[in-house]
Amino acid sequence: MRMAELSAESGVPVATVKFYLREGLLPPGERTSPNQARYSAAHVRRLRLIKALTEVGGLSLASVGVVLSAIDGDRTPHRTMGVVQEELAGPAPQVSEEAAEWAAGLLAGLMDRRGWKVHSPEHRAMANLVAALATAKELGQAKLIERLEEYAVLAMRVAELDVEVVNGLTSFDEIIEAGLVATVLGDRIFAGLRHLAQEQVSRKVLGG
Amino acid sequence: MRMAELSAESGVPVATVKFYLREGLLPPGERTSPNQARYSAAHVRRLRLIKALTEVGGLSLASVGVVLSAIDGDRTPHRTMGVVQEELAGPAPQVSEEAAEWAAGLLAGLMDRRGWKVHSPEHRAMANLVAALATAKELGQAKLIERLEEYAVLAMRVAELDVEVVNGLTSFDEIIEAGLVATVLGDRIFAGLRHLAQEQVSRKVLGG
Repeated sequence: MRMAELSAESGVPVATVKFYLREGLLPPGERTSPNQARYSAAHVRRLRLIKALTEVGGLSLASVGVVLSAIDGDRTPHRTMGVVQEELAGPAPQVSEEAAEWAAGLLAGLMDRRGWKVHSPEHRAMANLVAALATAKELGQAKLIERLEEYAVLAMRVAELDVEVVNGLTSFDEIIEAGLVATVLGDRIFAGLRHLAQEQVSRKVLGG
Repeated sequence: MRMAELSAESGVPVATVKFYLREGLLPPGERTSPNQARYSAAHVRRLRLIKALTEVGGLSLASVGVVLSAIDGDRTPHRTMGVVQEELAGPAPQVSEEAAEWAAGLLAGLMDRRGWKVHSPEHRAMANLVAALATAKELGQAKLIERLEEYAVLAMRVAELDVEVVNGLTSFDEIIEAGLVATVLGDRIFAGLRHLAQEQVSRKVLGG
């Protein structure tokens, strides 16, 4: 298909498509004349993916670039998902050293009891979790922290469902793309469901 | 306590504290001389709350203002939490009208089957959820959508835990603050746990 069709199919404006081509986020089309190129269904899919990552996942274009290189690289699906999750986690908020140390110990104990391991101690999702737990501690949210183990049990059940969703697929590309989308959209969808559910429980318990 | 002590206790720089006072996010201290005021433990708590909302929750100062007015207003705890969740949800991403209609129907069916209700049809958490579901559809993520009901069941269990965490408290202020923190930090903490858990399952299923 031509550029105009690619734009219409993907819902991404022509100027934006050209920008992605210049930035290397979208691979070039097959050149048919000095100023025309032909694009394929793979280009449409890639554009939809970039749209989902930026608009739903809230990723910067720099982070999208890192994620797409990981997809196009020769890592295993498991490692690729690791890169994706690091980018999605974003930078960790600032907390006091004392609270951070306390939270790191709490999380290490939890992971030890549950037999959870990470591929690197500099794990960004973990740094974020430590910062959030440290903030809860600084704000005196003892009850939230006391129930952490119960949250971890439910998180494992959600993660099992996440991997089941991805795992029925056969091709490497499909697995990576679905895993990526499941992570980005999955967080959004689950947070939305949780907030709706909170409203149901809160109405009953705290009163309308 | 004086301004310098307030800053040290809360971990918020003096210039920022003064900015929050000017913007009305922090109530004024008790004036002891033309250019000195005395602050209380309530000021420290409020500053920690603003810090958590901006740094961990990622809220803009405008959103923090809306949330704090809701806390200081005379709404019921249930309604106040509603305002908080609207602000946390942020603006919904753009999707095609067709996909949005399809997703709204899907969600309406789910909520109907589970007996979930919302206080207003213009619910921002719901608009976000609809946009995320529509994006999943546009990206051809049929399997994620097929399992939506299972995600909803797990989301309800997390929400029940959330409300239990808040509900042991006695004072109105404590309930609102804890609920607010549980929502902001709760999303972060649960997403962190989910990503760590995904890594465990993914290593087993997709291979290291």
